[in-house]
Amino acid sequence: MSMLNRQILLVSRPSRAAVAENFRLVEVPLPPLEEGEIRVRNHFLSLDPYMRGRMDDRKSYAPAQKLGEVMQGGTAGVVEESRNPDWVPGDKVIAMFGWQEYGTSDGQGMRKVDASRVPLSAYLGVVGMPGVTAWYGLNRICAPKPGETVAVSAASGAVGSVVGQLASRQGCRVVGIAGGPEKCRYLVEELGLDAGVDYRSASLAADLTAAAPGGIDCYFDNVGGAVLDAVMERMNPHGRIAVCGAIAGYDGAPLSMANPRLILTSRLTLQGFIVSEHMDDWPAALAELAGLVAAGKLKYRETVAVGLASAPEAFLGMLKGKNFGKQIVRLA
Amino acid sequence: MSMLNRQILLVSRPSRAAVAENFRLVEVPLPPLEEGEIRVRNHFLSLDPYMRGRMDDRKSYAPAQKLGEVMQGGTAGVVEESRNPDWVPGDKVIAMFGWQEYGTSDGQGMRKVDASRVPLSAYLGVVGMPGVTAWYGLNRICAPKPGETVAVSAASGAVGSVVGQLASRQGCRVVGIAGGPEKCRYLVEELGLDAGVDYRSASLAADLTAAAPGGIDCYFDNVGGAVLDAVMERMNPHGRIAVCGAIAGYDGAPLSMANPRLILTSRLTLQGFIVSEHMDDWPAALAELAGLVAAGKLKYRETVAVGLASAPEAFLGMLKGKNFGKQIVRLA
Repeated sequence: MSMLNRQILLVSRPSRAAVAENFRLVEVPLPPLEEGEIRVRNHFLSLDPYMRGRMDDRKSYAPAQKLGEVMQGGTAGVVEESRNPDWVPGDKVIAMFGWQEYGTSDGQGMRKVDASRVPLSAYLGVVGMPGVTAWYGLNRICAPKPGETVAVSAASGAVGSVVGQLASRQGCRVVGIAGGPEKCRYLVEELGLDAGVDYRSASLAADLTAAAPGGIDCYFDNVGGAVLDAVMERMNPHGRIAVCGAIAGYDGAPLSMANPRLILTSRLTLQGFIVSEHMDDWPAALAELAGLVAAGKLKYRETVAVGLASAPEAFLGMLKGKNFGKQIVRLA
Repeated sequence: MSMLNRQILLVSRPSRAAVAENFRLVEVPLPPLEEGEIRVRNHFLSLDPYMRGRMDDRKSYAPAQKLGEVMQGGTAGVVEESRNPDWVPGDKVIAMFGWQEYGTSDGQGMRKVDASRVPLSAYLGVVGMPGVTAWYGLNRICAPKPGETVAVSAASGAVGSVVGQLASRQGCRVVGIAGGPEKCRYLVEELGLDAGVDYRSASLAADLTAAAPGGIDCYFDNVGGAVLDAVMERMNPHGRIAVCGAIAGYDGAPLSMANPRLILTSRLTLQGFIVSEHMDDWPAALAELAGLVAAGKLKYRETVAVGLASAPEAFLGMLKGKNFGKQIVRLA
């Protein structure tokens, strides 16, 4: 019996914006398992902004995604077949199998999770890499004190929504920045942030000033570009900026910083980071996040595309902010 | 007997570049000392790039210099007359009396110094605010490890020359960036740095790469602008940038950062600072610097203008890099 696996490959690099033609869906046979191997049925794919950066062949923190290979990315699935004594069918698995229906591994890079307290898909978001990213940048770089004002961009997204809620729990005034009135309402009414600012508004500068009348002490930046420029103008002395993403520049548009002199005059600290370089902090962060989710104290939202074939379109939509919360693809 | 004091006032703000007409020399009578006061004859004025920032009426770390008042700045002098029991004629004094021949104080802001081991003027430079600035930014922000590569701009200046020599003493490879071949030769031949790079050269990018073949781990930035852009492209992962000055932007020219995305992709830390906010570190830093100067292990160079009337021209020249080492004005 020969089973089929469906995969999405990267077949060309974007010239500016990524397009559907950069991807191709293929069907390949699944070879029988060898001794020691495990086969996982992927139930969910994680779609994340960092993937856009890897589509380009330029210097970054990770090697470029190779052409002709399966798009890389996090997955949540269930063991279907195992020739490895450490794994049995039914085990819930977080891994990096990428955009495909099945993953095969000797166990390396696979992590067993408990999907009874927290839904399986949450391990790709609030209790996964995006959640730990939020936790690390907020606690290790921004390190806000109670009463300080924290701003976060892409605030309704997988990372930003965790940043905002954790900062609120730490006694900070929190200003969430997101695209459009619906997301901004969600920030205040559902997530409990103090203000939601629409970055698409022509009055962004004035809106930020109104939302942070005492200035901004910490900024968790997921977008770069004009929003970063506007926030920097309102940073208080000794402000801290965690540089986590630059989605505004992912399509190759020139992305300069308008007034870097503020780093000096406001004595700011800007620090870029990637969470995979700080594995020591993952266990404590994940435990805290899982506890909060299980207790209903950390809310999250998912946008779910269905079926592998929908992944490219869902990904391109996410880069334009069409998702609401964590973007995932459900495969099973 | 009524003595005269000569002063230089700021009488207008620059529209872009500062010009001689922004200043005016005046003569005013020196009132007799009151009980508790001390009169100091200023022997040296310190001219520093930060003064240009204060000439503008815009948000910065210090209030703008007021119009019609004496230009603020550090001074080194000798007590001539005292009605204060803590001070006697002949005491050597570092203070902030500004651009004038005499300073009068009740002792606040005055610091007695020992001019036997170290020349009095050095307390305005290598053993003064510029030296501590270098010490703080290098040790507290860059924190280079032996074997790492440290770059510093304005490397023959009062701050930069200390940064470079301290980094060399810590076992780093040091690349000094300065204007013109004479200064670049000085960096290598006199200060003992590993390479001198001329920022005015059309081949700045290639020259930096050649001078730092293993990339740059730490950058002490005194200038901002195109030099910062060029260095950022060559920073190694987890590089640290101490943002100390932005002289390239002092004339109001637009000063953007070309590629802030590097903060993320190279996981850089940029931190702005002003040394007057870190007074705890001054005693240890000054003791170390004085010891090195007295032992002949820390070299410095001064450009000396003579007479109060020469201060504006010397200051404007310094902003263009015409000085070589610390720019001072000798008054007596």
